[in-house]
Amino acid sequence: MRDVRMKGFGERVDVEKVEDFLADLSRPLCAETVDLLSCAGRVLAQDVDSVVDVPGFARAAMDGYAVRGEDTFGASVYDAIELELLGLSLPGAPFGGSLGPRQAVRIMTGAPVPEGADAVVMAEVCTEKGPRVEIREAVAPQKNVGAKGEDIRDGDRVLAADRRLRAQDAALLASIGCAEVSCVRKPRIRFVITGDELIPAGGRPDAAGAKIVDSNSVMLRALVARDGGSVLPFEILPDERDVIRDAMAAPDADVVLVSGGSSVGQEDHAPGLLAELGSLDFHGVAMRPSSPTGIGHIGERFVFLLPGNPVSCLCAYDFFAGPTVRALGGRSRDWPHRRARLPLRRKISSAIGRTDYVRVEIEDGRVTPLGTSGASILSSTVRASGFVIVPRECEGMAEGEEVLILLYDGDGEF
Amino acid sequence: MRDVRMKGFGERVDVEKVEDFLADLSRPLCAETVDLLSCAGRVLAQDVDSVVDVPGFARAAMDGYAVRGEDTFGASVYDAIELELLGLSLPGAPFGGSLGPRQAVRIMTGAPVPEGADAVVMAEVCTEKGPRVEIREAVAPQKNVGAKGEDIRDGDRVLAADRRLRAQDAALLASIGCAEVSCVRKPRIRFVITGDELIPAGGRPDAAGAKIVDSNSVMLRALVARDGGSVLPFEILPDERDVIRDAMAAPDADVVLVSGGSSVGQEDHAPGLLAELGSLDFHGVAMRPSSPTGIGHIGERFVFLLPGNPVSCLCAYDFFAGPTVRALGGRSRDWPHRRARLPLRRKISSAIGRTDYVRVEIEDGRVTPLGTSGASILSSTVRASGFVIVPRECEGMAEGEEVLILLYDGDGEF
Repeated sequence: MRDVRMKGFGERVDVEKVEDFLADLSRPLCAETVDLLSCAGRVLAQDVDSVVDVPGFARAAMDGYAVRGEDTFGASVYDAIELELLGLSLPGAPFGGSLGPRQAVRIMTGAPVPEGADAVVMAEVCTEKGPRVEIREAVAPQKNVGAKGEDIRDGDRVLAADRRLRAQDAALLASIGCAEVSCVRKPRIRFVITGDELIPAGGRPDAAGAKIVDSNSVMLRALVARDGGSVLPFEILPDERDVIRDAMAAPDADVVLVSGGSSVGQEDHAPGLLAELGSLDFHGVAMRPSSPTGIGHIGERFVFLLPGNPVSCLCAYDFFAGPTVRALGGRSRDWPHRRARLPLRRKISSAIGRTDYVRVEIEDGRVTPLGTSGASILSSTVRASGFVIVPRECEGMAEGEEVLILLYDGDGEF
Repeated sequence: MRDVRMKGFGERVDVEKVEDFLADLSRPLCAETVDLLSCAGRVLAQDVDSVVDVPGFARAAMDGYAVRGEDTFGASVYDAIELELLGLSLPGAPFGGSLGPRQAVRIMTGAPVPEGADAVVMAEVCTEKGPRVEIREAVAPQKNVGAKGEDIRDGDRVLAADRRLRAQDAALLASIGCAEVSCVRKPRIRFVITGDELIPAGGRPDAAGAKIVDSNSVMLRALVARDGGSVLPFEILPDERDVIRDAMAAPDADVVLVSGGSSVGQEDHAPGLLAELGSLDFHGVAMRPSSPTGIGHIGERFVFLLPGNPVSCLCAYDFFAGPTVRALGGRSRDWPHRRARLPLRRKISSAIGRTDYVRVEIEDGRVTPLGTSGASILSSTVRASGFVIVPRECEGMAEGEEVLILLYDGDGEF
């Protein structure tokens, strides 16, 4: 029989202390070049200034006739004027010449306004008569003309560093001629999944052999994708110290997520290895679930020891690893979840000095707690609408009290 | 000079009428098989029932000693009992034998509870003494034991059709042995981008030649990704009727987005082609911007004629195409944007009978409208925090009135 080290945790650290520690340490990663078509949702690493005007030319804002505004002064339905029709300006096929007094060019929306013209009369008040066009409405100069640079001016700061790029931001970058964008690098996440009892995801659990499927990595993969990280290839490791050590020490990762073997039991190699390879900054957090969580670093690499129980794994990821992944990628550390504020149907009990992550159901606009225990019951997080956080300084929440719910649905795409 | 058809729109249709028409027609697409590791964020096409218990065996919820609870009755610090220690049960390496009266097996969290045992005493109240273990606390049967099937029971409906899968749902599917999941197929979107003036995205706008960069497709690509669609390969088409016709008629797409040439001017082939190939159900909507939008279908394929002006393109996509893409993929038609409710710093003017999409800035908790005009000014949607919708029956919103803002940021990943 192997040597057994069975000990409890010492003092448990407050959630806020761990959060502050991580917030202090995590800075956006360096820049990488991202293709324009992939940049939406990414975070800009540098300011972007335009080196062109958009549009690069005065353009028609309407279908109609480009004219010199002053030529139309006095024109009305009762007193139409006629101008000489010189030609046509189309988007991409501008009128080549220039326009003199009492001349007009037919023009389509978006087409360049010819030299000499300064306004566009809309088509609805004009009639072509052979080589001439009749105009029944006066237009002031600049009417229906989009000035050169009206959208963006050469030299404008169009987007600032740290901006998370929207769909329209990507379009704006296209419009000023960017083919690539300098974005904060996506954090690379290594999973260290250990457990002799684990079958890789996609396999069938085996009651006879007491095997269970590695479901935590499936959940973590989706959470990391939500938070903008990319997962390095991995395989399930045996509960062997050297193997786990090599995986934790391997380069390339910005964040290591260890699932399983992270508590204080016999097979829990990870805490000792982390202390040896780098620093086990915290082990044991005053929270429920997830109290066996460990947090540390190896050089610049963050290491999270996530409990093997799936609810604890989800909770510990979302409290500590998620904000770190987001911050490394330049995003906000904030909870990415949608929120609701609703009254409690039943009180929530907690204890001062401990932070609770309480799964709740929403029914008929009221919130029912599903309990804080049962960290092994993954299905509770499937049934729940979201969760309520009971802070450390609070011994619970009363029936009827309005609480903030962080919703599991709609916390971003995958 | 080519023939010119310059006419205005006839009666413009109400936004709600178009929305109702699209809601009636758009149903989730048929199912496709999706790999477990890609299923988060997708929509289930079928109910999922478990064919296994999870866990498939009774397991220890603590590190400690598996015992028969009744053997410990009366045990205390002052009156310890001793049991015979038979062996060890580890996760993935269960104890092979069975446990008789006054016997115990050392056990780790998650390991199968041996036959004959019905409780686990936590390690902290036990001391090993050679072949025996001293126990200083009584435990009731079932204490610290996770029953077989405590998370999921064989036959349970674990997830219902139409569910958008969360990270933890994917994990649950893994835990019951799924390798693949039946999900609603992703809608396939064809872009028909026309315009002789357009340079493909990534190119440099060319002031001399009056060329502009196709930025709309860059924006639409990101919006379609947000809404769960996939974009078919495309290239920019010349303003030629036959070429545009072939592109609109091409099979494979569930949704066709036509950008450019969709109004009523000379180069606007798309409306006529749509009427010819299928049905131009609406052309011209009582809204600002985006009034030249067209909506129709060719067989089961939805076709949206989006205005070329970038703000109009964004607005028309978000009002009409976006909900359709989401609904085809099984998602909610609702606006995917995050929301805020804040008072107006300045009134918004509108007109009864017209729906307005007003870009707004949020500063110091108050909302400033950026105006409803300027549909060609893409940078306004970059500067804005989001938009306010002024409904048809409303002639505006007063200064100080609290309004609902749909935020451009945080409307999902890309």
